[in-house]
Amino acid sequence: MSGKTVLLDLKHERQRKFELFRQCLPDHEIIDIETGLSDAQRDRVAYAAVWAPEPGLLAGLPSLEVIFSSGAGVDHVFADPHLPDKPLVRFVDPDLTGRMVEWVVLQCLIHLRQQRRYDASQRARKWDEAFQPAAHEVTVGIMGFGELGQAAASALLPLGFQLRGWSRSKKVMEGVEIFGGKDELDGFLGGTDFLVSLLPYTTETHGVLNRDLFSKLRHGRFDIGPVLINAGRGKSQVEEDIAEALRDGTLAGASLDVFETEPLPQDSALWDFDNLIITPHNAAVSDAGALAHYVARQIRNYEAGQPLENVVDRSRGY
Amino acid sequence: MSGKTVLLDLKHERQRKFELFRQCLPDHEIIDIETGLSDAQRDRVAYAAVWAPEPGLLAGLPSLEVIFSSGAGVDHVFADPHLPDKPLVRFVDPDLTGRMVEWVVLQCLIHLRQQRRYDASQRARKWDEAFQPAAHEVTVGIMGFGELGQAAASALLPLGFQLRGWSRSKKVMEGVEIFGGKDELDGFLGGTDFLVSLLPYTTETHGVLNRDLFSKLRHGRFDIGPVLINAGRGKSQVEEDIAEALRDGTLAGASLDVFETEPLPQDSALWDFDNLIITPHNAAVSDAGALAHYVARQIRNYEAGQPLENVVDRSRGY
Repeated sequence: MSGKTVLLDLKHERQRKFELFRQCLPDHEIIDIETGLSDAQRDRVAYAAVWAPEPGLLAGLPSLEVIFSSGAGVDHVFADPHLPDKPLVRFVDPDLTGRMVEWVVLQCLIHLRQQRRYDASQRARKWDEAFQPAAHEVTVGIMGFGELGQAAASALLPLGFQLRGWSRSKKVMEGVEIFGGKDELDGFLGGTDFLVSLLPYTTETHGVLNRDLFSKLRHGRFDIGPVLINAGRGKSQVEEDIAEALRDGTLAGASLDVFETEPLPQDSALWDFDNLIITPHNAAVSDAGALAHYVARQIRNYEAGQPLENVVDRSRGY
Repeated sequence: MSGKTVLLDLKHERQRKFELFRQCLPDHEIIDIETGLSDAQRDRVAYAAVWAPEPGLLAGLPSLEVIFSSGAGVDHVFADPHLPDKPLVRFVDPDLTGRMVEWVVLQCLIHLRQQRRYDASQRARKWDEAFQPAAHEVTVGIMGFGELGQAAASALLPLGFQLRGWSRSKKVMEGVEIFGGKDELDGFLGGTDFLVSLLPYTTETHGVLNRDLFSKLRHGRFDIGPVLINAGRGKSQVEEDIAEALRDGTLAGASLDVFETEPLPQDSALWDFDNLIITPHNAAVSDAGALAHYVARQIRNYEAGQPLENVVDRSRGY
């Protein structure tokens, strides 16, 4: 073994991921933190691939050069107040992006086509046609219009949906009406029937999906809107407000993959809403192999003197 | 009123459709068959817009020039053994096509993402992640690769699905593996995980979606396939075989918008299957306005000496 040391601190399928990293980086030393870390090993860790590392863990690695987040989001890494000032690389992967797009498109279509209503009719053995608008009569507004948001838009456009995107700094995309910054948020919301949030979690997005925001969405068009679809982060949403909005019609429906507390507690009121679709934070769970290949490729490029890709801008927090 | 006479024999929203035809063809006489047809009127009907006309009705119209079907399918019109030998025009409309595409994409994603499983978990307040393949690992095979089939493929491709299309005569489409004719049907089925049928109903497609065909689909890849998705015609499917195939695992799931008898009888065994999604033949119910505009445009073009569009080839039956 000639290469440097890679420390893994990942969730799910640890053994399988360990083997995959070994296969992808045969010349490097791979250590899973679950199996213990000697002082000598700790001193030589050059790379850490992590999901939500124990606070202080990374600061205690004197030879650390690069931190790899195993998710597209990095809020779990930033949660460490002692996070060392090393390059932090996000996981960007076509497989992960594709899975997120599948989920977003599925949820938009479930609400457009009133799938939960037809499910109920089926259980009641009822042949019951409902009026339904076409996709081209409905506007999907995507909040957080980065890599994932733009990919989702690319798959929603061929279905005929009207598209708009909002992000902190304006992006450009053909066929999508673009909004940027706080000043344009209300205008963005006012023409949105289905709000898709792919926001990263930062101090600025904490609790931003709340009653006040829901009330600014477009109301009174068809029975099927407005709808909240959140695949960003749970701490961006106020679940008490979502429940209240679903009860009083401020929201006609919702789809949530993320929650303030995960797993969603058994006693949450959210489970019982007919027109709220709950999935267990797996909108975009990527293949273990994809992560190992991604990190290995970046490490090889880095050691060959190439720049790292998808390095997080610490000033923005994502 | 200077123009010729248009007879309407449509289902649903008759009054609204009558008004829309009057608005779109203000110089023509519009008659709804429900309100009665005098002998003098009968003698001057030049155009008939119909869904499933009473056998012999059209043959009894001496001045009839063109028949317009109010659906994309024309089997309901061909059911008349006395159908006169006049041009028969199918309804082709971007709105109708778009709605069909919405439904097909929704059903593919419901099965890919195991939505019925997550629905059950939600009802049980269970946070339960399942393994799921990505769209790019799954092949959707579209049987009946005409206007609707190709439009569906265009919306499935950006989601990453592998695509193949089968039709009587081979079509060409980038990114889609093409099969044609009876000789290539087994090869087509053998690599298909999700079978989407958009077949027209003819003597050749009667009962073609049966146990023998299901057994030829690709088996043993993931838990989620094979799946039958039928938005063509109910009489192309054998419902007893579908029920049996769902019971013994020959099919892992299905989505049906059409049925041998519609509405689907209350005592059908199909209602109760967990992984069978039933919708009430409304995958592509188009706007009443779209039909009136379409027929009016065709009549105006025809009266100006232009050729009719989307005329049915009687030798093929669709």
